[in-house]
Amino acid sequence: MEPAGASHPTPPSFTEDELIAAIRRVLSGDHPGVVLGVGDDAALVEGSRPGAELVLTTDMLVEGVHFDRAVVAPRDLGYKAIVVNVSDVAAMAGSPRYALLSLGLSPGVEPAWVMELYGGIRAACDEYALSLVGGDLSRGRDVVLAVTVVGAVQSGRAVPRSGARAGDRIVVTGALGAAAGGLALTRTPPARLGDALGSDWGRELLRALDRPVARVGEAETLAQAGATAMMDLSDGLALDLHRLCRESGVGARVRLADVPVAPQVRLLAGVLDVDPLALALSGGEDYELVATLPLDGVARARSDLDERFGVALTEVGEVVEAELGYVAVRDDGSERELEPRGWDHFGTG
Amino acid sequence: MEPAGASHPTPPSFTEDELIAAIRRVLSGDHPGVVLGVGDDAALVEGSRPGAELVLTTDMLVEGVHFDRAVVAPRDLGYKAIVVNVSDVAAMAGSPRYALLSLGLSPGVEPAWVMELYGGIRAACDEYALSLVGGDLSRGRDVVLAVTVVGAVQSGRAVPRSGARAGDRIVVTGALGAAAGGLALTRTPPARLGDALGSDWGRELLRALDRPVARVGEAETLAQAGATAMMDLSDGLALDLHRLCRESGVGARVRLADVPVAPQVRLLAGVLDVDPLALALSGGEDYELVATLPLDGVARARSDLDERFGVALTEVGEVVEAELGYVAVRDDGSERELEPRGWDHFGTG
Repeated sequence: MEPAGASHPTPPSFTEDELIAAIRRVLSGDHPGVVLGVGDDAALVEGSRPGAELVLTTDMLVEGVHFDRAVVAPRDLGYKAIVVNVSDVAAMAGSPRYALLSLGLSPGVEPAWVMELYGGIRAACDEYALSLVGGDLSRGRDVVLAVTVVGAVQSGRAVPRSGARAGDRIVVTGALGAAAGGLALTRTPPARLGDALGSDWGRELLRALDRPVARVGEAETLAQAGATAMMDLSDGLALDLHRLCRESGVGARVRLADVPVAPQVRLLAGVLDVDPLALALSGGEDYELVATLPLDGVARARSDLDERFGVALTEVGEVVEAELGYVAVRDDGSERELEPRGWDHFGTG
Repeated sequence: MEPAGASHPTPPSFTEDELIAAIRRVLSGDHPGVVLGVGDDAALVEGSRPGAELVLTTDMLVEGVHFDRAVVAPRDLGYKAIVVNVSDVAAMAGSPRYALLSLGLSPGVEPAWVMELYGGIRAACDEYALSLVGGDLSRGRDVVLAVTVVGAVQSGRAVPRSGARAGDRIVVTGALGAAAGGLALTRTPPARLGDALGSDWGRELLRALDRPVARVGEAETLAQAGATAMMDLSDGLALDLHRLCRESGVGARVRLADVPVAPQVRLLAGVLDVDPLALALSGGEDYELVATLPLDGVARARSDLDERFGVALTEVGEVVEAELGYVAVRDDGSERELEPRGWDHFGTG
């Protein structure tokens, strides 16, 4: 979720990715039953019979870092806390089943706020057909939500980040930048927004921020169409696709003209000084999917997604050998490095 | 873990148990696949085949509430964060398999501290044969660890809190109060402790606090011996047994003279003004098991525990009808109410 800014003046001296790399070294070695450990959208572990695997993921949302309690409605916060985890399970082509919530509460929080939070959690669990089965409560200075979601997937059907191969096409579901547009709206004084907040597109941007959609069925469809790698877009295409490429040991060429910018973001650019393409590439929080597919799978995937979900699938580029780099292709055919910049949830990106 | 005291001057206006009761109302209803939801040591859900269930639990440790970063070694903290969750899985008679950690880090935390923390996590995972498979990192004002552990149990073999019946005997593994004794040591100026810190018993008390033991095999043995209800002692026998009785709809009579007070706590009472029985009843953090057994299962359970693990099993009382209350029996046979008082991890107990 969005950074709240001022309350954490001293960023730590290491990035999330650097720390994760160090942690992976500490945790390295053989682990019985673990199909895929730290480093993907979710972990894959053996289920209780051959043929089934469990998909495990956890996400922490901290007041002042991921949300501002003065702005966010507790019902939206609870809803979103579930959806972002469901999205991680979806990104493995898994089906979410169970959720657990550890909740830290600061002294000023009212019971009514907590009940609204759980109301939103319940609504998201109902929407995505999973059950909240456990939790823990603690005090603390910040409100903290740590959600774990357990899902299931047939053995061999999960799609990790590491399977992209040179020649695969890079596809993206839906349109990008709307959540970042919604965040820009919430950070702008209403007087500067004119009629934007009352407009359909303004409301759609805010809703994209507050009520993200996890692409569960869409991910399964992409897996069936032969996706070689997949992840969900939490930190923006430019950063997340870079992570996928790193795990796969490949490079990418992304045609900027083909990146599907949400139309509401273009309308926003008529009101605020924002760059629609920058929001689409680095805004984060869209929870759309990026996947790689062999060329002959793209058409089927596109028609299946349209038919089953009415969701667009856009080809934005192709996977290349690692030594060819991570490249953005401009409209005129010229190239530049695609900077892996986006919203680093750890707070230093 | 232990409260750090001064940093949270305003306790919230509700207890953890009150809030959990309200949350359970919000979450009520039928949930497919959920055998046992919120309210026990861990949740039980259907596994991927008939005959197997998953055991799911989560626990949040917050700086300033559960631990003091100036005092605790990060390796001990990481170790303990895993063990307290393993203990919850054990309390269902489950076998721990996988762990996930969401970690919130405040700006002052050094990478070396984080690596030591993960070293302790790794050590505990190795000790209890589970794998850390996922996680998340965030910034925040407090260091926060939210651990989830996934375990397995054969269908119908889990032991919930709710199965105690009048006439069952109440048994406790090991000895109680040592972790609370260790906490008392850490809170006393060294000058007042004489040789206690250098003594074997002093070191054992500190170790009980820093390196708790989860009774995984012991719990399975108690289940095989016919345990009707079971839970782990995180908040002290007086409070935790009360929770078990409430879930089972029964009362209890506990013979105070039979409560197994750790011998090191009696030695501590020669140095500090502490009541050994009070520490054993309400100190918390022992992670021993309390279980209820039919009378004819007690002898077998005791000999099996002794033979397999060298762990004592002590009968401390019996389950009675709810209307007979929750009673402590003194040495002289007189009775008083057993106050359900202990360490409420939410911070108001």
